[in-house]
Amino acid sequence: MTENAINNALRDFVTERDWGKFHTAENLAKSITIEAAELLELFQWGNPASPDEVRDELADVLTYCYLLAMKIETNPHDLILEKLDKTSQKYPVDKSKGVSTKYDKL
Amino acid sequence: MTENAINNALRDFVTERDWGKFHTAENLAKSITIEAAELLELFQWGNPASPDEVRDELADVLTYCYLLAMKIETNPHDLILEKLDKTSQKYPVDKSKGVSTKYDKL
Amino acid sequence: MTENAINNALRDFVTERDWGKFHTAENLAKSITIEAAELLELFQWGNPASPDEVRDELADVLTYCYLLAMKIETNPHDLILEKLDKTSQKYPVDKSKGVSTKYDKL
Amino acid sequence: MTENAINNALRDFVTERDWGKFHTAENLAKSITIEAAELLELFQWGNPASPDEVRDELADVLTYCYLLAMKIETNPHDLILEKLDKTSQKYPVDKSKGVSTKYDKL
Repeated sequence: MTENAINNALRDFVTERDWGKFHTAENLAKSITIEAAELLELFQWGNPASPDEVRDELADVLTYCYLLAMKIETNPHDLILEKLDKTSQKYPVDKSKGVSTKYDKL
Repeated sequence: MTENAINNALRDFVTERDWGKFHTAENLAKSITIEAAELLELFQWGNPASPDEVRDELADVLTYCYLLAMKIETNPHDLILEKLDKTSQKYPVDKSKGVSTKYDKL
Repeated sequence: MTENAINNALRDFVTERDWGKFHTAENLAKSITIEAAELLELFQWGNPASPDEVRDELADVLTYCYLLAMKIETNPHDLILEKLDKTSQKYPVDKSKGVSTKYDKL
Repeated sequence: MTENAINNALRDFVTERDWGKFHTAENLAKSITIEAAELLELFQWGNPASPDEVRDELADVLTYCYLLAMKIETNPHDLILEKLDKTSQKYPVDKSKGVSTKYDKL
């Protein structure tokens, strides 16, 4: 399915419920964080998480990310590729291979 | 660009750096939360956030979400649609229209 | 040092800078989350965290927690004890001993 | 009530339930973040939050902060004062008065 189709489905869902008024960029940023922490909760005590629960919580994070991307008039794939390009430059292969060191300490 | 193309670009980036070993589901869940909070930081004091910074931080959240989706062998679009279907049932239009009430209090 | 002395030191710091106007309950809640994620970042890839950095980030979370407690006219010690009492009832020793199961699944 | 008394109450609660084994520094950092986001959820759509719910969620964040402070063999009050001293230097009154600008842009 294309990004456009996803965006249309999300837009219809929101419009039908008249929820656009709640979806300021700030409220969406809060929502992304709240849902991210619910995803994290599945790993709180270091036990293996249930795959179905991971799907469910990851879906919530993604949904709010897509809504925020629409809000700022961009799309997730462009964002990811644009950032991947920047990150590739910050983490050159020869310096970053196999280590988790942050770029400012490489 | 298709999801496949994005996934391939992400996979190549990770493989070249031998970073797959860091990307356990738990570490990705932590990373999603950490990046979400960096996005939230742009709205910390209620000021309007810089659009470029929002793009940048949202891109980081999305990137880790896509990596986790790959890790659990699914894809973001399926996750979003599957969840949208569930959420539509939890929030029927006639009860939820125009209100931000949580489903368990509708 | 007593809680009162800590609260006075925090209040003076904020008043001198005229920062009280930024410290709505919501902004403090955002700030607590943002700082918590910075603490979490020290454990992002599962490596042992530097004790000095943990002190530093934990201090930030605590500071905003104390400011929010003042804002809602209570104090951290009362909050902790009040909640410990509730949690003790939700997690009776005989059912919860040695397991990390959430109370609604005990 | 003194910090010592609070710490003793927390320690007893944990010991009785044999929960110390779950309380690695990393798991506590995750827990602080998770509870912080539950606090944030009370402000998700910008509505005023219920004071009782704020008390409850703030208590959870504080509880895990106190447990982590014990874990790293320090105490919350020292941490707060030590950090307040650093922050006072990063944000001199004359430069930071009345503005929410981050220290690196002052």
